[in-house]
Amino acid sequence: MIEKKISVAVIKRLPRYYRYLGDLLENDVVRISSKELSKKMDVTASQIRQDLNNFGGFGQQGYGYNVEYLYHEIGKILGLERKHKLIIVGAGNLGQALANYTDFEKRGFIIEGIFDVNPRLVGMTVRGIEIKDIGEMEKLVLNGDIDIAVLTIPKQKAVKIGNDLINWGIRGIWNFAPIDLKLKLSSDVVIENVHLSDSLMTLSYNISCKE
Amino acid sequence: MIEKKISVAVIKRLPRYYRYLGDLLENDVVRISSKELSKKMDVTASQIRQDLNNFGGFGQQGYGYNVEYLYHEIGKILGLERKHKLIIVGAGNLGQALANYTDFEKRGFIIEGIFDVNPRLVGMTVRGIEIKDIGEMEKLVLNGDIDIAVLTIPKQKAVKIGNDLINWGIRGIWNFAPIDLKLKLSSDVVIENVHLSDSLMTLSYNISCKE
Repeated sequence: MIEKKISVAVIKRLPRYYRYLGDLLENDVVRISSKELSKKMDVTASQIRQDLNNFGGFGQQGYGYNVEYLYHEIGKILGLERKHKLIIVGAGNLGQALANYTDFEKRGFIIEGIFDVNPRLVGMTVRGIEIKDIGEMEKLVLNGDIDIAVLTIPKQKAVKIGNDLINWGIRGIWNFAPIDLKLKLSSDVVIENVHLSDSLMTLSYNISCKE
Repeated sequence: MIEKKISVAVIKRLPRYYRYLGDLLENDVVRISSKELSKKMDVTASQIRQDLNNFGGFGQQGYGYNVEYLYHEIGKILGLERKHKLIIVGAGNLGQALANYTDFEKRGFIIEGIFDVNPRLVGMTVRGIEIKDIGEMEKLVLNGDIDIAVLTIPKQKAVKIGNDLINWGIRGIWNFAPIDLKLKLSSDVVIENVHLSDSLMTLSYNISCKE
């Protein structure tokens, strides 16, 4: 069984391990040493050994790690062993891009609905999923056991819609609106904000440092 | 003048300060105390004072910070005082979403070209910018003083195209392909990888922790 007390710092690095192990699996790599993985990931081998020791002692000296096993164990920790039902709120370009991104589905994130206010988008389909009027969202969330709402809507609307979704029982919000969503703090809802503009400004900063 | 030696930890927080100060400016807020800003940003007032002290002593007791001044000073540090010319490589949904995101342009990131290999996309326009065949990209980068390439292409193509762009003199790559781009390390090119799937897995992890 997996030791459950894993430090926040390790947790933060898990998606990256998962991604690299997934690539190795795709390339039919059966096992890998911490040294080889270290080269690929640009972290020290000792960091890798420390991190992965949290998942039991299956990294063996002279053998390395079993890629498939480790991949699945990390997946379990990340909550990927079960399916997550998603809705996308906002069917503009970004919403459609996320809906078209099949890697999410491969990892068990299943899109159950796409919603928009724009009558020109309503009725269109993205990967076979019909874009519906946002007025129909409440029913689906209340009845459909939806886990995650992906918000790709303007920031002016994000707070109202976020609060509605929480009232209807959503468990997680993946927010792309350019605002730190701070909704009802008493709720158990998890919010992950993606700030693309912060990332672009970091790039700009690093470019100006090279000058 | 601005003190140039600013710690990495502070730098990492700058885009967020910049975003909040920009929102305050939009709402015509002239000045703000560290306490008020602290409430908005969910960090301690003393953290804010420490961070912003890097930009000189213009936070005055009993007055607070001049929003517009601080916004522009942080913008300078982030390299936003000058325009950056961008190209978008990959005109799928994500590329189009980024091209349509007018906030980037407001911050001086000007899109000079959009490229794709898909003949069905070539010739279409996004916000008045014609999508061109990727074969025309080299000329523009070589002649056009392009600073940043935004890669919204499959991971299989990202390494080759990234290396081409570096050979042609690009200065920064904003990479959305699901791979950590590690290109010619000797070059002065700055790479910022955006891993949307890592963010989604973090959300999934946090949801499973609440169970």
